[in-house]
Amino acid sequence: MSRQNSLNFSGGPGALPESVLLQARDAMIEVPGVGLSILGISHRSDWFANVVAELEGNIRRLLSLPEDFHVLFLQGGATQQFSMVPMTMAAGKTSPADYVHSGYWSGKSIQEANNSAPIRVLWSGESCGFKRLPHEDELIYSPDAPYLHYVSNETVEGLQFRRVLGLDSVPRVCDMSSDFLSAPFDAERFALIYAHAQKNVGPAGVTVVLVRDRVLQAAPDGLPGFLDYRTHAKAHSNFNTPPVFAIYVVLLVTRWLLQDIGGLEKMAEINQSKAAALYSALDDSDGFYVGKAAIDDRSLMNVSFNLPGQEIEQHFLAAASAAGFSGLAGHRSIGGIRASIYNALTLEAVDALVAFMRDFKQRA
Amino acid sequence: MSRQNSLNFSGGPGALPESVLLQARDAMIEVPGVGLSILGISHRSDWFANVVAELEGNIRRLLSLPEDFHVLFLQGGATQQFSMVPMTMAAGKTSPADYVHSGYWSGKSIQEANNSAPIRVLWSGESCGFKRLPHEDELIYSPDAPYLHYVSNETVEGLQFRRVLGLDSVPRVCDMSSDFLSAPFDAERFALIYAHAQKNVGPAGVTVVLVRDRVLQAAPDGLPGFLDYRTHAKAHSNFNTPPVFAIYVVLLVTRWLLQDIGGLEKMAEINQSKAAALYSALDDSDGFYVGKAAIDDRSLMNVSFNLPGQEIEQHFLAAASAAGFSGLAGHRSIGGIRASIYNALTLEAVDALVAFMRDFKQRA
Repeated sequence: MSRQNSLNFSGGPGALPESVLLQARDAMIEVPGVGLSILGISHRSDWFANVVAELEGNIRRLLSLPEDFHVLFLQGGATQQFSMVPMTMAAGKTSPADYVHSGYWSGKSIQEANNSAPIRVLWSGESCGFKRLPHEDELIYSPDAPYLHYVSNETVEGLQFRRVLGLDSVPRVCDMSSDFLSAPFDAERFALIYAHAQKNVGPAGVTVVLVRDRVLQAAPDGLPGFLDYRTHAKAHSNFNTPPVFAIYVVLLVTRWLLQDIGGLEKMAEINQSKAAALYSALDDSDGFYVGKAAIDDRSLMNVSFNLPGQEIEQHFLAAASAAGFSGLAGHRSIGGIRASIYNALTLEAVDALVAFMRDFKQRA
Repeated sequence: MSRQNSLNFSGGPGALPESVLLQARDAMIEVPGVGLSILGISHRSDWFANVVAELEGNIRRLLSLPEDFHVLFLQGGATQQFSMVPMTMAAGKTSPADYVHSGYWSGKSIQEANNSAPIRVLWSGESCGFKRLPHEDELIYSPDAPYLHYVSNETVEGLQFRRVLGLDSVPRVCDMSSDFLSAPFDAERFALIYAHAQKNVGPAGVTVVLVRDRVLQAAPDGLPGFLDYRTHAKAHSNFNTPPVFAIYVVLLVTRWLLQDIGGLEKMAEINQSKAAALYSALDDSDGFYVGKAAIDDRSLMNVSFNLPGQEIEQHFLAAASAAGFSGLAGHRSIGGIRASIYNALTLEAVDALVAFMRDFKQRA
């Protein structure tokens, strides 16, 4: 692995495993067994049908996905899902859909949903600066809502839910863009899950959607084909030309998860160790490194923190860059520092960052 | 170049130039000047902003594009444009938009447009089996239409317009997916042009849209952000995470067009030579190879033809495959043979195919 790639703590597009990058490199010239560049292989080829089928199977296996889920690979990112979800599940309903506003990305989802259907914001962390997630007794769910929407991990603020929200009687929709396939979760409890690829599962340009057949059955007619989940389900994600390369890389990542890592339980253990090492570095710093998120709501994916002042933060970023680390600047909306430790970041890389942070503090 | 890639006559995703594939390969591990895999570089980085800016500049230069065009790089393929165009330009209008139905892909655009706005099919080639394009005296344009939509090159049938359609008083919208950047054209005469990348300009996963500022000014409010051209224009194609890799490859292709080929006039000359060689092979075959398209409407990009019977066509495809050629099967909707000779296919590759065809005919 090039040292730079292994020390890429970017919030997304994020680092990918070395073995995946090497296979992606080879595929630019020749895909094994095909003999053509992946950029010139037909999306109607048997080879690509097998890529989609194997990838779908791998995701089903990794998540022990209930049979009645469709597994789709779409374009447009989570942003397109912000609209497709209300268009599909709330259009024409009298009761508003419930949304939890827990940070930057759920805010974006609410803004877009407002263009498509009536929604209600159940709780907002805005007044507390999105430093914590809601306690259960703060959430008064509507039993009449067509669905509940929330974001499992807020990438910008570094907040992650440790529980499944909502009522079992109301369909749950979850944006898992930044923690999908980072740990097991109980898919049985959800109606629709979506995740763009560019955190844990692949490059920018493809979005994974897991959607129950009953959601498709109840979808309205008359949507443009590319906004209708049924079109994509019927066409096995090959309604119009899909992003062949991006989907292939997601396949390589799922193979890596299954074969090299050994499944999501193992992946979760590694991710917990990485987060524990980094949060310890904050907690043991005598207030030099201050985490942004409330301790109980800390994300295992994105560790957001501040140093004593913007000047020293800039100094920290420059020194980190000189030492080979990249992607550590906080999101442009809130600044500070953010270390994103998605699946492909190794414990060794995190240990190297922790060592750098201890050293920087001593010299500061 | 691997011989297989150079002999890839796929209808799309199509072959890309060797120098582009080699640079794409290197970028999987390390983008020059950045030191990171392209799959892990932030779309908010200065590097990527420069990629978009250079690419936009290259397209403006290649086409001598009038200043008031926005140049956008979107997801969702031409299919998404089939809906975005009527949503933007025809919603709420009393007169229907005019559509020319010249083949498979314009048929798809009509089907999708019908979901979004009132349209009128001005002419359809259905009754003549899409073997020819309309003569000018068959087209009675509506002066009240909010726009005229047509497809410049029908990939499946191998039909290409040699003229610009429509009235100067009605905004022209053109799907140039399969001949964009294959030759110069007079952009001044169009209001909106779109082209997915996977024929002449890059890999699947990104679509180029050239749209006049006055179209944006007149667009309706309340569209979801990702369906609003204004959102993308304002954000310089970085509204939500764009397909970074696909956009980078399109940049590499435009550099190749400017630096290696020497511009679109030169590209057009090469493409004319390639098409001339291949159509001569049909015309000189004593009826063994029969072109599907009327001679005056023959596409310079897709040469669709038949042999005397399906059995010998299957034999031809098998022999071609054994000889290293690929992608020659006709579109699944109409069968037969199709040789797609997009920009990256060399005259040498076409000559090799012509030699193979002559040899096959002699042995048949």
